[in-house]
Amino acid sequence: MARKRKSVQEYASGVLAGDRVMLAQAITLVESTLESDSLLAEELLHAVQSHGKQSFRLGISGVPGVGKSTFIDAFGTYVCDELHKKVAVLAVDPSSSLSRGSILGDKTRMSRLSVNANAFIRPSASGGTLGGVAARTREAILLCEAAGYEYIVVETVGVGQSETLVKGMVDFFLLLMLSGAGDELQGIKRGIMEICDALVINKADGDNKPAAKRAAAEYRNALHLLQASDSGWIPRVATCSALAGEGIADLYTILDEFERAMRLNGFLDKNRAQQQVDWFNDLLRSEVLRQFYQNEDVKTDLSTYSSQIALGELSLRAGLRQLRNKYFAKP
Amino acid sequence: MARKRKSVQEYASGVLAGDRVMLAQAITLVESTLESDSLLAEELLHAVQSHGKQSFRLGISGVPGVGKSTFIDAFGTYVCDELHKKVAVLAVDPSSSLSRGSILGDKTRMSRLSVNANAFIRPSASGGTLGGVAARTREAILLCEAAGYEYIVVETVGVGQSETLVKGMVDFFLLLMLSGAGDELQGIKRGIMEICDALVINKADGDNKPAAKRAAAEYRNALHLLQASDSGWIPRVATCSALAGEGIADLYTILDEFERAMRLNGFLDKNRAQQQVDWFNDLLRSEVLRQFYQNEDVKTDLSTYSSQIALGELSLRAGLRQLRNKYFAKP
Repeated sequence: MARKRKSVQEYASGVLAGDRVMLAQAITLVESTLESDSLLAEELLHAVQSHGKQSFRLGISGVPGVGKSTFIDAFGTYVCDELHKKVAVLAVDPSSSLSRGSILGDKTRMSRLSVNANAFIRPSASGGTLGGVAARTREAILLCEAAGYEYIVVETVGVGQSETLVKGMVDFFLLLMLSGAGDELQGIKRGIMEICDALVINKADGDNKPAAKRAAAEYRNALHLLQASDSGWIPRVATCSALAGEGIADLYTILDEFERAMRLNGFLDKNRAQQQVDWFNDLLRSEVLRQFYQNEDVKTDLSTYSSQIALGELSLRAGLRQLRNKYFAKP
Repeated sequence: MARKRKSVQEYASGVLAGDRVMLAQAITLVESTLESDSLLAEELLHAVQSHGKQSFRLGISGVPGVGKSTFIDAFGTYVCDELHKKVAVLAVDPSSSLSRGSILGDKTRMSRLSVNANAFIRPSASGGTLGGVAARTREAILLCEAAGYEYIVVETVGVGQSETLVKGMVDFFLLLMLSGAGDELQGIKRGIMEICDALVINKADGDNKPAAKRAAAEYRNALHLLQASDSGWIPRVATCSALAGEGIADLYTILDEFERAMRLNGFLDKNRAQQQVDWFNDLLRSEVLRQFYQNEDVKTDLSTYSSQIALGELSLRAGLRQLRNKYFAKP
């Protein structure tokens, strides 16, 4: 996207002042893959850090059809209007890594929130790897917080890896579900239930209420088989009707309880610091591996070796020794 | 351990002939961390490969007290005596990476199997990292199979990472559980239930039978919430009493059903080939990273950077750029 460059100071002061247009442009800057933007983005992120504003980061996942948009529209509007907090909605959209599509491309999906003065909605970064999309979303979070948004909602779609990435950038991870539909249809991938802090059965309205309650009990039972996470928090199961606006306040109470407890026991800060360090180590590991695997000779050798190994023609020891001798200097 | 070196040919022919003493010495050789042994081990593994003997690899996990030894003793004896198959029992013991202890150090734990002419019991490799222990166990599996052992049982204790490693070296992963005891006490780590092909409630005898049946139903319910694995196999839940020898034959029927189905649909071979390739890639990635992180300057920089990042004093972009410029040549 072509745009007029601003100075780091212009971006930074605009963001810190809560200027929505500047915030949007700043996010575009950190999302840019242009080498020429990268240093500017780095300086911007440095300039807006340690602003001392407090925020809560909420991750939300669920398969298409579960009602994520309606839920975020209702929940975000509640937080904006009833609790008078500024809400930012971001997204990590795996499909955006492949297609150019975005699960938040169409703001009309959140008709009320998108026109709320206290809300900022940003489509998913697109293009690049899922990891790259996630990395840019992490930085968008930092910019939104610098702009004074107190409640950051990160939406993703239920496809396994993206949940794990979002889990690593939020304080609380919420999984939206439906009763009725087969669980495979709901795309519960192995391990996703293990990372959620709350599992919410949506569309618990009308004739669907009893089924939703039953499903909630079933999931409570399943979650109860899992160990508590490091935070000591036991995952909650709740029901709600985003459409009817039922259960939203109760759900907020759960989130509030979590936030208070985790600020009190220091887990919130500890977890965020750990997330940062983990993320840095992930990025560094990826970079180290990228530097190795981008080597053309390595690519050729690997495809040859892999097929020989799959056929049982090459032992792993031999393959490893040959590659070590070829690409690494003796200690 | 001091020992007289033999030639690769001596080891290989001994192993292929099913000589138990030679097999034990061959495993000791591949377990050796001596540089001088490594090439010999590589040649040995090469010499015994593609022997064309068929085997089934069974992984078994469960926390101490669940009765793994009694179970393996009963199950192994059943396979040896009733089905006339040769059974090898190996172990991946996380504690052996730390202490020198081994969950299979004391063969008297399997009093019947340890004296069975058709059985070969090998304590866990000890020392080194858990990954190292697992790597040597993988090679021990290959040697046992070359020696004609048709049923390979790999035992591990329920501590998360070791299950994943064992899952990656077996055809079927079985989790032993107890009814009654709190699930935390049973150490169900997040994700372990997701990787097991069968969950078996042991000690289903006497007064404990009803509780075991209830627990089985509960777990069936929980497992039912998970997607089927790539093999198309739906995890089974069963009960047994290793002590009374009840349920062992039924359990074997399940394993037999799995083996037949997976040989028929080709998953067994496909999975093993994939496991080999995955393992090779794991080893290579570890090697690439090891080569980088063993650098003294890198160590120093990382500790400095990590603490600055945890304190929010350094942005990830800046840290990454600095390390990239310092340690990698420009493309």
